[in-house]
Amino acid sequence: MRTRFVLINTSHAGNVGATARAMKTMGFDDLVLVAPRWANVLNREETIQRASGALDVLKNARIVETLDEAVEGMAHLCATAMTPRDFGPPTRAPREHFATLLGQTAALSKEERLAPVPVAQKPDSVAFLFGSERFGMQNEDVYRCHVALSIPTDPKFGSLNLGAAVQLIAYDWRQALGGFSVQPATAEPTLADAAAVAGMLKHWEEALTGIGFLDPASPKKLMPRLNQLFNRAQLSPEEIHILRGVAKAMLQNTAIADQTPPKGSRPAGSAGGH
Amino acid sequence: MRTRFVLINTSHAGNVGATARAMKTMGFDDLVLVAPRWANVLNREETIQRASGALDVLKNARIVETLDEAVEGMAHLCATAMTPRDFGPPTRAPREHFATLLGQTAALSKEERLAPVPVAQKPDSVAFLFGSERFGMQNEDVYRCHVALSIPTDPKFGSLNLGAAVQLIAYDWRQALGGFSVQPATAEPTLADAAAVAGMLKHWEEALTGIGFLDPASPKKLMPRLNQLFNRAQLSPEEIHILRGVAKAMLQNTAIADQTPPKGSRPAGSAGGH
Repeated sequence: MRTRFVLINTSHAGNVGATARAMKTMGFDDLVLVAPRWANVLNREETIQRASGALDVLKNARIVETLDEAVEGMAHLCATAMTPRDFGPPTRAPREHFATLLGQTAALSKEERLAPVPVAQKPDSVAFLFGSERFGMQNEDVYRCHVALSIPTDPKFGSLNLGAAVQLIAYDWRQALGGFSVQPATAEPTLADAAAVAGMLKHWEEALTGIGFLDPASPKKLMPRLNQLFNRAQLSPEEIHILRGVAKAMLQNTAIADQTPPKGSRPAGSAGGH
Repeated sequence: MRTRFVLINTSHAGNVGATARAMKTMGFDDLVLVAPRWANVLNREETIQRASGALDVLKNARIVETLDEAVEGMAHLCATAMTPRDFGPPTRAPREHFATLLGQTAALSKEERLAPVPVAQKPDSVAFLFGSERFGMQNEDVYRCHVALSIPTDPKFGSLNLGAAVQLIAYDWRQALGGFSVQPATAEPTLADAAAVAGMLKHWEEALTGIGFLDPASPKKLMPRLNQLFNRAQLSPEEIHILRGVAKAMLQNTAIADQTPPKGSRPAGSAGGH
């Protein structure tokens, strides 16, 4: 879906840079600035620094004089506005509104959720409008929008930074559009099968008896407890291997202890390489 | 739920300020810094500026030397890490993991979603760990965690600003915890009832016939089309009033036109005051 971010009367160059970066992390690249404070904002040092590599977004950004030019070709306009007004489009949380907009059945978890803004059909393009840092959006700009998105913040402190607000909207919108996949940073482990866990536990039972921790005459619930612990831990085959190694070493120590070795001797088969 | 944000080896004072602000917007206030670059980071000008009013979070923040001190008393540790590693806790998207952690049935919309990280019971406290801007988290710090949260970003540009990452995690966590309510910026409109809409349409039909736009002999689907349009618009009683005013003015013009008035005369009953 075509998506545009529109910053109106932005004062701080750093926020323009942060916006470009926030957009790019979520895969968006269409940025339009309406009458920013600095005419050269796209080339200012602070902008470039805060953009941190999202330079293509800045390079493709357009600066225009009016909101009319900024929203040309966009079907669905979302204001971002926190200030109460006498009149205007309905206020909604971004996550719920995006679900409505895309025809998804939103998981409304709270009873007091507001009714969805009616959307007859999915638009082909969406623009998000952000007002100036100090004054927010002007009434006449809000009036043109289909919805006023309000990011749910602590009622006692709703002061979101402009770049942070862009980041949250871009994130929720990207997630609503299907999202990017999370790339596992490590290989997903395979699970050891139940037989492997049972075999390891048998090994441990023998070892714990050997070292005198488990009394076979009064085992209480020790082994079932360990069984539950290891079930929750969802052991991998490699971990079964480690735990069997520990059991083996316990048993070897027992054997050595049975031979009453000289004090300070090094036990055979000590763990290593894991 | 007790929630702590832990910044490890943070370099930029601005990011500490942005973190405090991001936390406070989402109603969190427990911030711990592990060995930040600047010992006086909580009092630096850039920190205070970027915190923008979240000064109580900075005031209550603690600076410690080790991660051990930072995570004391916290039951569930979440790394935030994007870099692939040979080994470590499972990588998950925040939104899914939070649902799992809180025992909610997450709305998993994509088939390729990763399996939830097993959580035997809801922890009483959660800490979110963030590494340094340049190097991220060290392996030994990640190893201590129960999960590595990865914010789903564009695979071609995953470079989230530290403050932005804190903002997204704080937002998703707050939403998972139930979220703050959105306060409607304007009064929620009441809907006009179907009889009021039908009455208004009757008025319009008469007016449109009067001005020669609707031919009663060949009405086509004009009135049903307008009916559908106004249904989608979900009219308020006030808007019914406006539309009836328009119809009335159209009819008055017709009456005037029937009297063939001198050219340029001002029609009676022109709209105003809406």
